[in-house]
Amino acid sequence: MKNSIGTSVILTLFGESHGPAVGAVLDGLAPGLAVDEAFIADRLSRRQPAGPADTARVEPDRFQLLSGVYRGRTTGTPLVIVIPNENVRSGDYRALEHVARPSHADFTAQMKYHGFQDPRGGGHFSGRVTAGIVAAGAVCEQALAAKGIRLATHILRCGGVEDAPFTDVASEIGKIEGRTYPMILDLGEQVEAAVLAAKQEQDSVGGVIQTGICGLPAGLGEPWFDSLEGVLSRAVFAIGGIKGIEFGTGFGLSGMRGSAANDPFRMQDGRVVTASNHSGGINGGITNGMPVIFNMAVKPTPSISRPQQTVDFAEGKDVELSLTGRHDPAIIRRICPVVTALVCVVLCDQLALRFGTDYLAQP
Amino acid sequence: MKNSIGTSVILTLFGESHGPAVGAVLDGLAPGLAVDEAFIADRLSRRQPAGPADTARVEPDRFQLLSGVYRGRTTGTPLVIVIPNENVRSGDYRALEHVARPSHADFTAQMKYHGFQDPRGGGHFSGRVTAGIVAAGAVCEQALAAKGIRLATHILRCGGVEDAPFTDVASEIGKIEGRTYPMILDLGEQVEAAVLAAKQEQDSVGGVIQTGICGLPAGLGEPWFDSLEGVLSRAVFAIGGIKGIEFGTGFGLSGMRGSAANDPFRMQDGRVVTASNHSGGINGGITNGMPVIFNMAVKPTPSISRPQQTVDFAEGKDVELSLTGRHDPAIIRRICPVVTALVCVVLCDQLALRFGTDYLAQP
Amino acid sequence: MKNSIGTSVILTLFGESHGPAVGAVLDGLAPGLAVDEAFIADRLSRRQPAGPADTARVEPDRFQLLSGVYRGRTTGTPLVIVIPNENVRSGDYRALEHVARPSHADFTAQMKYHGFQDPRGGGHFSGRVTAGIVAAGAVCEQALAAKGIRLATHILRCGGVEDAPFTDVASEIGKIEGRTYPMILDLGEQVEAAVLAAKQEQDSVGGVIQTGICGLPAGLGEPWFDSLEGVLSRAVFAIGGIKGIEFGTGFGLSGMRGSAANDPFRMQDGRVVTASNHSGGINGGITNGMPVIFNMAVKPTPSISRPQQTVDFAEGKDVELSLTGRHDPAIIRRICPVVTALVCVVLCDQLALRFGTDYLAQP
Amino acid sequence: MKNSIGTSVILTLFGESHGPAVGAVLDGLAPGLAVDEAFIADRLSRRQPAGPADTARVEPDRFQLLSGVYRGRTTGTPLVIVIPNENVRSGDYRALEHVARPSHADFTAQMKYHGFQDPRGGGHFSGRVTAGIVAAGAVCEQALAAKGIRLATHILRCGGVEDAPFTDVASEIGKIEGRTYPMILDLGEQVEAAVLAAKQEQDSVGGVIQTGICGLPAGLGEPWFDSLEGVLSRAVFAIGGIKGIEFGTGFGLSGMRGSAANDPFRMQDGRVVTASNHSGGINGGITNGMPVIFNMAVKPTPSISRPQQTVDFAEGKDVELSLTGRHDPAIIRRICPVVTALVCVVLCDQLALRFGTDYLAQP
Repeated sequence: MKNSIGTSVILTLFGESHGPAVGAVLDGLAPGLAVDEAFIADRLSRRQPAGPADTARVEPDRFQLLSGVYRGRTTGTPLVIVIPNENVRSGDYRALEHVARPSHADFTAQMKYHGFQDPRGGGHFSGRVTAGIVAAGAVCEQALAAKGIRLATHILRCGGVEDAPFTDVASEIGKIEGRTYPMILDLGEQVEAAVLAAKQEQDSVGGVIQTGICGLPAGLGEPWFDSLEGVLSRAVFAIGGIKGIEFGTGFGLSGMRGSAANDPFRMQDGRVVTASNHSGGINGGITNGMPVIFNMAVKPTPSISRPQQTVDFAEGKDVELSLTGRHDPAIIRRICPVVTALVCVVLCDQLALRFGTDYLAQP
Repeated sequence: MKNSIGTSVILTLFGESHGPAVGAVLDGLAPGLAVDEAFIADRLSRRQPAGPADTARVEPDRFQLLSGVYRGRTTGTPLVIVIPNENVRSGDYRALEHVARPSHADFTAQMKYHGFQDPRGGGHFSGRVTAGIVAAGAVCEQALAAKGIRLATHILRCGGVEDAPFTDVASEIGKIEGRTYPMILDLGEQVEAAVLAAKQEQDSVGGVIQTGICGLPAGLGEPWFDSLEGVLSRAVFAIGGIKGIEFGTGFGLSGMRGSAANDPFRMQDGRVVTASNHSGGINGGITNGMPVIFNMAVKPTPSISRPQQTVDFAEGKDVELSLTGRHDPAIIRRICPVVTALVCVVLCDQLALRFGTDYLAQP
Repeated sequence: MKNSIGTSVILTLFGESHGPAVGAVLDGLAPGLAVDEAFIADRLSRRQPAGPADTARVEPDRFQLLSGVYRGRTTGTPLVIVIPNENVRSGDYRALEHVARPSHADFTAQMKYHGFQDPRGGGHFSGRVTAGIVAAGAVCEQALAAKGIRLATHILRCGGVEDAPFTDVASEIGKIEGRTYPMILDLGEQVEAAVLAAKQEQDSVGGVIQTGICGLPAGLGEPWFDSLEGVLSRAVFAIGGIKGIEFGTGFGLSGMRGSAANDPFRMQDGRVVTASNHSGGINGGITNGMPVIFNMAVKPTPSISRPQQTVDFAEGKDVELSLTGRHDPAIIRRICPVVTALVCVVLCDQLALRFGTDYLAQP
Repeated sequence: MKNSIGTSVILTLFGESHGPAVGAVLDGLAPGLAVDEAFIADRLSRRQPAGPADTARVEPDRFQLLSGVYRGRTTGTPLVIVIPNENVRSGDYRALEHVARPSHADFTAQMKYHGFQDPRGGGHFSGRVTAGIVAAGAVCEQALAAKGIRLATHILRCGGVEDAPFTDVASEIGKIEGRTYPMILDLGEQVEAAVLAAKQEQDSVGGVIQTGICGLPAGLGEPWFDSLEGVLSRAVFAIGGIKGIEFGTGFGLSGMRGSAANDPFRMQDGRVVTASNHSGGINGGITNGMPVIFNMAVKPTPSISRPQQTVDFAEGKDVELSLTGRHDPAIIRRICPVVTALVCVVLCDQLALRFGTDYLAQP
């Protein structure tokens, strides 16, 4: 499926960093869902650069809805969002066409596309393509909210700064959404300072982000290969900067004993709940009705200004690379709304598969 | 796709712990591949219990090839492997039919299947089903080996014992395969002692396992949603005991700076290689020709003999559960060949998609 | 997907004519559906040879349910049906391993599988594999019936004998099911005579079959590529003997004018119906609530006893072929239950996609 | 997959008749294929109205390539073609929003989308959407031609006029491409006269079209559910006006005996060929290397100016409908390039699956 994900609700991405536009096709959404352009714009704005710690390339992200919306609501047929690229300075990249930026996709794209890939600004591998995810995810997010399903992604750890982990997802989502740096605690300035410190040293930083979802019904996900962990992982690993994912206590579980790691069930107000949530809301690949929580490792942005050793793959020789151009010394702030959006698409798909194509639109 | 995975080479799993059989369908394999029953049996034996630290349920794993093999070679049509369940003691489980074992799939299966699931021994959620994976993966493993692609999974960490990580995958695979406890260093007895210590306390342990693959060509995996990380993750999260995955340095990258995390490229014998391998052999979701390496968090086995708090979901009330029956105090040893097998299937699929359905059989 | 069909309910076929067994995996069925082994056996018996006009190879079709059934009901996990091959005389075929039977799959299988295919009795291309379809379809048929959806396939035309077309599907299904030769009119003896006449001349006959479905809700099928016509066609063209399909008046529409071909809508008892049904119950690829009716062209059985010109593809030379072995001079009687079964699987999939995975089990 | 088709090469359609644009995403094409905008424009022009027998709505079909093309060649990442709707007169349709045009998708769309569908000009069900197919297919057609694979679709029968069937596909393609009315014989004026005669009587006509493909390798298509007949059928039944398909002699085979219907094999210049081609180049669902030939039944255009009986589905009452607006009294001329384009996409997908993703770009 390459650039598409989903079975009943299907997202397809397209576009290159310096081509005419990026965008997305969202097929299979229930008919009758409100499409709120202001909300889409708000979600896109959370992905935009917002200060000295982000790239200098600021795109207005004026989007067009080419199809699938009629009188402000989804029609049930493919919704196409096109986001033109307006702030393009391709001259920055031309010299480096055959010089592989370390830990970037330049070399692997060359191995896959044999020199026909669009190299400008990373081409189709650029983070620019995630604008389409965010716009499509915004439509899904509102559909989920109408069903009582809410989620957010925050910076859990970055540059030595540590946010609080999710403990009461429903209330913490509001805090995260209110801040420029999506965090539960008010630590944005400290994160920004850490990022700027790296930038000053011509370097970059990574971190850990965490997504929390509340309001999901029990029973989503299927053995063996559509486990919810598997489905969510496949989605988030679309983002090249993510190199790890763990559900609930994740790698922490590996050092625990079963007696401590198991989540005891108990009845609460007639519902089955668990006393702890080391499982991250998923048992046997299926949601158990508790909040779904997972962490992702974000590597430091590979584009750094320091000189780096690499190769010119056209000439087959070692070279030193000094990057100019505009890049983020950290993408962690901007990656959070992208992950949230991807997860929204995945959840809409799972709900439609389980409960039918009209489920999200039912009152 | 539920119980199936793959696009060109497709694995489908079936069976329940205490039903007549478990097994797998493997469709789309190139015709003409040798099917070595002794090798399949060897791979199955690595998954079998092997001592006091494993479950007392030992299955002979006598398998039958129902189709897809003719004169000892794959025909190109669906290969079906059936592995009868011979050592079944269902009486152990009957009393617990409505009592959810904490952190097991009992409750979530109930929410999904409304009481119609087979509850005996975990039914379709049982680790028993992985025998089908191992058998199918063995056929794939030999096809990969003929192309110079080799892989293994070892216990990296368990019960305080720490194995060496992969540094020279090709040579370390041999060491791992030679040991009862799949490890690079000769630490099996220490791991076994740690597991037995937990067992004595009616408890269980988890750990971290690591898979290494060498010989893969550059250029496998595709943006955005068939990244190799995404494809591998979806596969391994089929196993309910795995709660995290990280590629290369993974979560370790989140605390590093770009200048340290980036893998410098350099020419070596006319090939492009990287000086370090923090990326785990994957950039932008595509293999770069370096060994692919990833770690997985294995939670402690949820079945423990200690009394646990839980619910009877038929009666909707809190109960205390004391498990009898036969279970492993650690599955980490037995999970290694399962992960290797799953990865073999995924790699055959990726190679067939990239190079055509006959690729694996070409000389 | 090769040997699998479906998105939410997925059928996978396996087996060879002279291998140990044929069978099917049916994944994604709602949990709690009754699995009536006597009904499955009844459907299998309709596919069995039944007299002098059919092949002399009679298989008892003793089937085993390996998984997915518990206490007589579907569990919601993969249901596996294995039907051993018991009446195998492989000696009949050995001499012809490299001689392509005209209009059979021998040569094309060679081009695809390079000589590794199982040639005995047509191997995986044998009509024997349809036993798995029939068994799986029987489970689906009963689930549909519980929802008021009924269907049947009859011989519309064969050897100069012409059955009545469907006009009142619901009542005609009963007539068809009551006869050895599935027909609305009592013309089985005449068809049998025509087939025997061909057999006596060492020849074979084809015909046209027709499927009618009543009780389907409006709104199944989706633009553009999951039109119900497209989905049904892909399913029935699995059968190598089918070379054409037409919906409603089909090719007859090509000579009509719009004023005659259009089906006027009208209200009837508060429901929208059409006055005629030239569209075969489908407009724009979506069911309109009228009976879905379609015809299929069945070619004469390619296996005939007359000498035929062909090639030995191993030696690359022209040869004359005189077939011995056991084959049907007409498959049209036996193909009807196979088509019905396939359609049952497709409809279960469509309903599950539209209304959710539990729909078929809901009261 | 709804609006997408394909496994390795994937086409996704979007757009509504009176929305901002229609278009297509083509993902998975080999990198390095020439994208010839003049050729795309030529193929689009064959789909455009061309005289008094076609609709009065003439769209300039100015297309934009938003992504996937760099320096005139495919990049290997999604190619997006957007074709703005420029000649839209929505006022024509407003009054009929709830009045179902007989044998159109108005009523079924209502049943599926509950009134949220875009009703203007048929919305997403409009033939306008086929412009995206034609543009995408043109890119594929040139890739196929470079591999020696050529195809065309012609009007075999319309309004009493009968074209010659394919006998020598390679040479007949040239004749078809040279005419305004795609036919082997020079009968366009007669077809046009028949269509105009129907138009004058406020009526419409259908017909039969035929596609021929030459140069295909043997071995494409797979048992059981990816038979080439099944794959092609699913594609062409995307077009609501097509109600039947037959391969080779198709329904004609149903009245023949095996001795006449079978295609004898013989050696010719070291290649295996068949003496006749009743099978339409496909045995057992797999190409045999002979030309692939199939016919499709095209129903008369359902939009006619005569008063028709129908229902107002919002009010649930019978009404008489008198259509104004602009429509074709026959779509058969314009449907031919659409079918050819769809088949080009399907063949590129089949070839990529069989021989790998780079196959089409290999010299």
